[in-house]
Amino acid sequence: MEFVLKPIGVIHSPFLEKSQVPIQASRSKAKGTLEIYPEYIEGLQDLKGFSHIILLYIFHKSSGYSLLVKPFLDDQLHGLFATRYPLRPNPSGLSIVRLETRYGSMLDVEGVDVLDGTPLVDIKPYVPEFDERSNTCMGWYNTRKTE
Amino acid sequence: MEFVLKPIGVIHSPFLEKSQVPIQASRSKAKGTLEIYPEYIEGLQDLKGFSHIILLYIFHKSSGYSLLVKPFLDDQLHGLFATRYPLRPNPSGLSIVRLETRYGSMLDVEGVDVLDGTPLVDIKPYVPEFDERSNTCMGWYNTRKTE
Repeated sequence: MEFVLKPIGVIHSPFLEKSQVPIQASRSKAKGTLEIYPEYIEGLQDLKGFSHIILLYIFHKSSGYSLLVKPFLDDQLHGLFATRYPLRPNPSGLSIVRLETRYGSMLDVEGVDVLDGTPLVDIKPYVPEFDERSNTCMGWYNTRKTE
Repeated sequence: MEFVLKPIGVIHSPFLEKSQVPIQASRSKAKGTLEIYPEYIEGLQDLKGFSHIILLYIFHKSSGYSLLVKPFLDDQLHGLFATRYPLRPNPSGLSIVRLETRYGSMLDVEGVDVLDGTPLVDIKPYVPEFDERSNTCMGWYNTRKTE
């Protein structure tokens, strides 16, 4: 069973090389622009009322994966699904960015952490009532070795 | 340009019909089980330290979409990308669930809001530092007509 995704647009960012990309959107103040393809523009209506949006995209420059990885934030091996490492069986990425302005098919955002040219497959509004959880435990993120 | 996703497992839930599915995972206490296919099990290591996980999945029973939709929570039309409506150009779904236990290839979770048999394409750990935002505005969700 396979499913085919077709981009609805492209993410423009200042990051031309993987080494430049911030580790997480929450730590990034980088500006970017979402270019939405003409056939999907009508779906952007009402989006500008939201301060933050969830981007689903494809890690299009990632190929291959290991099920045990040493993430950027630690020096120990962890199960891939317990990390946000970009090389995954399905190269689906997720970032929350701040929506600044919209002009036509273009959305200016802050807090991008993806390569320039990343294919965008979905935009969802960020709604704290749906997207936040309390009383969380974070496994190895809490006990990782930091320098 | 197209990208192919291949499920890493399947989500078992109590919901056999669309009409039974809760509107959002945050409002659901429903129990479910993630069945991970054998070739991906090694990637689950260290996951049990996390209280909450992000599921990326395919709305496999959704086909077709409109760019303007009347979401479950309102009686007005809104741009599709300003809603969490399941009929989308790319049927990618996102839910945060509470991880209860793991036994081998099976993960018991609480808070599912998907149909039984939903194809799972990725698991990511939920990390508030990455996944929460403050000072949010929520557009039509704040001004919607509620009964």
